Amino acid sequence: MVVGCIPEWEDKLLLCRRAIEPRSGLWTIPAGFLENGETVIEGAKRESFEEARARVEILGLYTLFDLTHVHQVYLIFRARLLDDHYMAGEETAEVKLFEEKEMPWDEIAFPSIKKALTLYFQDRLTGVFPLHTGTIPPFKKI
Amino acid sequence: MVVGCIPEWEDKLLLCRRAIEPRSGLWTIPAGFLENGETVIEGAKRESFEEARARVEILGLYTLFDLTHVHQVYLIFRARLLDDHYMAGEETAEVKLFEEKEMPWDEIAFPSIKKALTLYFQDRLTGVFPLHTGTIPPFKKI
Repeated sequence: MVVGCIPEWEDKLLLCRRAIEPRSGLWTIPAGFLENGETVIEGAKRESFEEARARVEILGLYTLFDLTHVHQVYLIFRARLLDDHYMAGEETAEVKLFEEKEMPWDEIAFPSIKKALTLYFQDRLTGVFPLHTGTIPPFKKI
Repeated sequence: MVVGCIPEWEDKLLLCRRAIEPRSGLWTIPAGFLENGETVIEGAKRESFEEARARVEILGLYTLFDLTHVHQVYLIFRARLLDDHYMAGEETAEVKLFEEKEMPWDEIAFPSIKKALTLYFQDRLTGVFPLHTGTIPPFKKI
């Protein structure tokens, strides 16, 4: 099981540029495998700190994606940065806040993350963020 | 990861009396470990069929519980029986529809299931079933 969050700061989102494979050099949100003994919310907070040195408040579950081809379930929460202190963690090359118009849509590391971020900006138009569930198909190499 | 559902039929819920350990003889909802290659919704449907020979429509995710002491995440969906055909599966001693006033509260097999069912009847008073998240502590032996 993978847990992660979409960290908000004002009208911006915090993204991390990956420093490790797979998909090194591309952008993603803080996310990673749930560890034994932690709750899903603790896992999402831990990943935010490990990858972006960011402290977040978790707002609610936002997406539940099945990645059956890799036997993974992805839980992504909405979150809010507690302050604007952040920096790249060990597995991260760069951390940056993006406004919607600045989003690096062609350089998002994973289809599941691109899907979650796309839904986020759609829902932000109405201010209502329902839980989205679905299946993410295998990644197609270009 | 464990997936299950609360199957509704009119104003009743379908429960299964366990024929296997742990907690043999006590009542629960259809639930079990997610299998490789299936989605969480497919898993919840499969468990309903395996344990109660019941075909269900999944209505939505209802609870997300962390059972950190056993390194499990429990996803419970609301569901609706597609018809009133059901019978005990191999690991089930008995399957029965319960009205709220008939619920065997003192014979529910697991704290996570008792919690989900308790929330369900609370929410049913308003007709609104939000996602509930939380941590279920270790089971205390009496």
